[in-house]
Amino acid sequence: MDKEIYDVVIVGGGPAGLSAGVYTARQRLKTLLITKSFGGQMARKAVDIENYLGFEKISGSELIKKFEKHLKQRKVDIEMDSVVKVKQSGKGFSILTAAKKQFQAKAVIVASGADPRPLEVPGEKEYIGRGISYCVACDGPLYSDKDIAVIGGGNAGFEAAISLINFAKKIYILEHGSVIKADEENQAKVKKTGKITVVTSAAVKKVEGGKFVESIVYQDRPSKKLNTLKVQGVFVEIGSQPATSFIKGLVEFNEKDEIVVNPKTGHTSTAGIFVAGDADDVPYKQIIIAAGEGAKAALSVANYLEKTK
Amino acid sequence: MDKEIYDVVIVGGGPAGLSAGVYTARQRLKTLLITKSFGGQMARKAVDIENYLGFEKISGSELIKKFEKHLKQRKVDIEMDSVVKVKQSGKGFSILTAAKKQFQAKAVIVASGADPRPLEVPGEKEYIGRGISYCVACDGPLYSDKDIAVIGGGNAGFEAAISLINFAKKIYILEHGSVIKADEENQAKVKKTGKITVVTSAAVKKVEGGKFVESIVYQDRPSKKLNTLKVQGVFVEIGSQPATSFIKGLVEFNEKDEIVVNPKTGHTSTAGIFVAGDADDVPYKQIIIAAGEGAKAALSVANYLEKTK
Repeated sequence: MDKEIYDVVIVGGGPAGLSAGVYTARQRLKTLLITKSFGGQMARKAVDIENYLGFEKISGSELIKKFEKHLKQRKVDIEMDSVVKVKQSGKGFSILTAAKKQFQAKAVIVASGADPRPLEVPGEKEYIGRGISYCVACDGPLYSDKDIAVIGGGNAGFEAAISLINFAKKIYILEHGSVIKADEENQAKVKKTGKITVVTSAAVKKVEGGKFVESIVYQDRPSKKLNTLKVQGVFVEIGSQPATSFIKGLVEFNEKDEIVVNPKTGHTSTAGIFVAGDADDVPYKQIIIAAGEGAKAALSVANYLEKTK
Repeated sequence: MDKEIYDVVIVGGGPAGLSAGVYTARQRLKTLLITKSFGGQMARKAVDIENYLGFEKISGSELIKKFEKHLKQRKVDIEMDSVVKVKQSGKGFSILTAAKKQFQAKAVIVASGADPRPLEVPGEKEYIGRGISYCVACDGPLYSDKDIAVIGGGNAGFEAAISLINFAKKIYILEHGSVIKADEENQAKVKKTGKITVVTSAAVKKVEGGKFVESIVYQDRPSKKLNTLKVQGVFVEIGSQPATSFIKGLVEFNEKDEIVVNPKTGHTSTAGIFVAGDADDVPYKQIIIAAGEGAKAALSVANYLEKTK
């Protein structure tokens, strides 16, 4: 008996993958979406989402529920698993998962997004779950009346700090660069709290403690002087790294490990493989942009399959 | 007294313009949005929208209300007017409206969208949403087991007919010229279906029906003979017309009168002018794509103003 061949396998259940699925289903493509969980990076959003057009203010978890419901109401197969490898196979592709399942598809949409970028300093790995966190939305409440360092002075770091005000006693934001990259609105909010100290030109060197984190050591880059902050929690918000290792060698990447995309269509350098969302090299990483790209990639898959029939 | 200078004027109140406004406000850019009405092409949607991620099924008018409310809750000036001319003025731009008002801005986001080119025959306007459609991707599924006429023998018409095969019982393609302009590949595909009749030299004269479309009348141009086709659906695929005349001469256009965009950033060929949505040359025209592009253009405006400070 022939193994079932999907028209398209979508890798990832964040906004790009979910939007792609809504569109491929509507195009009547036999679709499989493979994801460990729904929402992607939205699940880590510390503050409400206020810039996805149509929802003035909504929590990440609520918006994920709406997205997931939207997809599930369509004719799309869903596999709760991680993709570990995509290989060319005949005219199409073979997709392997962590649970050792294998799927065949004529086209693939890579919507696997990105994972938080680690600090890569001594003590970081050891203290994950014991003071080190990459998810304020998940772990913030654990730090009631604690002193906290947020690493990263972009919007993510500022938003993390803002949401931690409800729990933390004292908050530091450490930014590696000499200028703050967070937008004006977030800077104003942080200032207004009176509880957050922003430190620029701070290079984190190590995380120290006993059973749990007790302090963080950073270097003031201009003076090279080392400083120690007594903190019980460290939230790392220094950006992300594309979750694209499963497709290495099959498509072109840029120097940031992002997949090079034709941003008009979602095509990668390899026929039959499409990309959408934070896994690609479009410079802006936003939910609404990822959702738009998912739709684009899905429509391009439909065109591609039509042409290769 | 100095006349007020906006950081950015957004031209258009469809999904691209509204998303752009939500984003520029968050960037604390002094923003003016000029539009005749909200929703752009969504306003003409007679059928529910089912592919804007987060809303499983919502009418165009309801979704417009949500978009409009989202924008109005932000700090954005709104002028209900049409832009008739954008001109370079000093380091920025001067924007003239139909009501003869003039505004100054450092940057402009063109989000003025496009209109499908109408047939301009009796009955067409009356049956919009009741048998007349300009969007197969949106409305095709509504015509399950119906007979359909697609107007336009170019690639768009042929591709529309091909995609309608999944839904329709019988399809006619009516082409005004004596030869088919669709490419060989599309012609071969149409032939292969055995379900599509192609009629050349057909000048559509009127659309008729009761509450819904029941037939279309066309003239065989060589013989001048009038013919009637019993159809419940008419898809008009004779091209669209970007609403971009107010900015002619200032930015680069393609042969379809679409503004050439850098689709990663929303930049046009002219520094300080950005474009998002159906006015640009991205091939897919969808609400979620337009909203994503609006966000992209807004973030690019913020970067541009930061750099030119």
